[in-house]
Amino acid sequence: MFLVEGEKSVIETLNSKFTIQYIIATKPFLDKYRDILGKNEFFEVSEETVSSLSTMSNNRVVLAVVKQNQVKPLKSLGKKFYIALDQVRDPGNLGTIIRIADWYGVETIIASIGSAEFYNPKVISASMGSFTRVGIYYTDLSLLFSTTDLPIIGAFLKGESIHNFELDKRSGGILLMGSESHGISPELEECVTRKVTIQSLGGAESLNVAVSTGILMDNLQRISKE
Amino acid sequence: MFLVEGEKSVIETLNSKFTIQYIIATKPFLDKYRDILGKNEFFEVSEETVSSLSTMSNNRVVLAVVKQNQVKPLKSLGKKFYIALDQVRDPGNLGTIIRIADWYGVETIIASIGSAEFYNPKVISASMGSFTRVGIYYTDLSLLFSTTDLPIIGAFLKGESIHNFELDKRSGGILLMGSESHGISPELEECVTRKVTIQSLGGAESLNVAVSTGILMDNLQRISKE
Repeated sequence: MFLVEGEKSVIETLNSKFTIQYIIATKPFLDKYRDILGKNEFFEVSEETVSSLSTMSNNRVVLAVVKQNQVKPLKSLGKKFYIALDQVRDPGNLGTIIRIADWYGVETIIASIGSAEFYNPKVISASMGSFTRVGIYYTDLSLLFSTTDLPIIGAFLKGESIHNFELDKRSGGILLMGSESHGISPELEECVTRKVTIQSLGGAESLNVAVSTGILMDNLQRISKE
Repeated sequence: MFLVEGEKSVIETLNSKFTIQYIIATKPFLDKYRDILGKNEFFEVSEETVSSLSTMSNNRVVLAVVKQNQVKPLKSLGKKFYIALDQVRDPGNLGTIIRIADWYGVETIIASIGSAEFYNPKVISASMGSFTRVGIYYTDLSLLFSTTDLPIIGAFLKGESIHNFELDKRSGGILLMGSESHGISPELEECVTRKVTIQSLGGAESLNVAVSTGILMDNLQRISKE
């Protein structure tokens, strides 16, 4: 089981393939959404009760206990775009990256063992409902990369500018992001076929990993559309 | 006074124009950075003491108490790029946007009254030292916008695609971002001269405001460079 908190996330879960165990909500929520609650079990409680049960400080409306999906093993990679994460441990960043993947139509994230856990409440919350549409696989990335011909595009501080980057739009590819503090690990750097960089004009040494993922995905979408 | 926490942020503060009142740090930190500590007052304490004084759960190394800079009034806007924020209340998002501004060489952020407070420890922490290079002004945005000829580029869910956007690189401009839950307020929407959108291919309804700011700034940088 895992916890889904807040109005938007619970509504997205109700409209998804996830199975809800039960919902705990205030009367206004239950009245507003009675039509889509269907046969789901629910408990009507006060705002204070929702607040005391929630891990989010600002949720006073609703939470749901939901069954985890069983993850099928990832057999092989198709000619599509994937986001791969090497040791991205911050759950807020993972949730935000799931939301970015959903925005750009990336259905699958591949994460190294040791990355933040998909069902962590902070991941679910930061994904703003996108966890219902994006799957994640935890695996040994170097092993997986050794089985694919897809270009592996790694984000580095010193690579070719993403603004000048060219890519055959039919090729698909894997965008590999490292952790903010350590970057892409040396073992995985060896698997990278293209190193890309977001050009800087200012003084910051780096960008937040979710922001970088968004910027790189936007550039890849622009390129693969041309 | 305000609090600066963690190794990277304190080092950036030591190398900035901010005046440090005193530093509280562990022996390894003090030994490592003795040369750049200069005449700053410091206290050597245990990891546990740093941890108990810090607002960040993972900081066991150093914190500094720093004097706030006096903000000069913003007289007029030059032909440069600015980021304007309408009711961006989440301190983590504001800090991340300060870091993005610093990356793209934007020196000034203009925020509506009611946006997150610059000196909030979460803002300082998320900015990863960029608070030392980026200034922020809190003001009545509609009043300020009425005094400028700069293009005001507003982020909307339905605007022209940022991928097809054109802009005279000498014109400068203001990128206006609204809050994630409410968008740009109707009063400020009237001031917007260009509405832009980040194209989506997937199911997410929106992106995180800091991620959107990064994507739009990257596109504006690409355009204004051409």
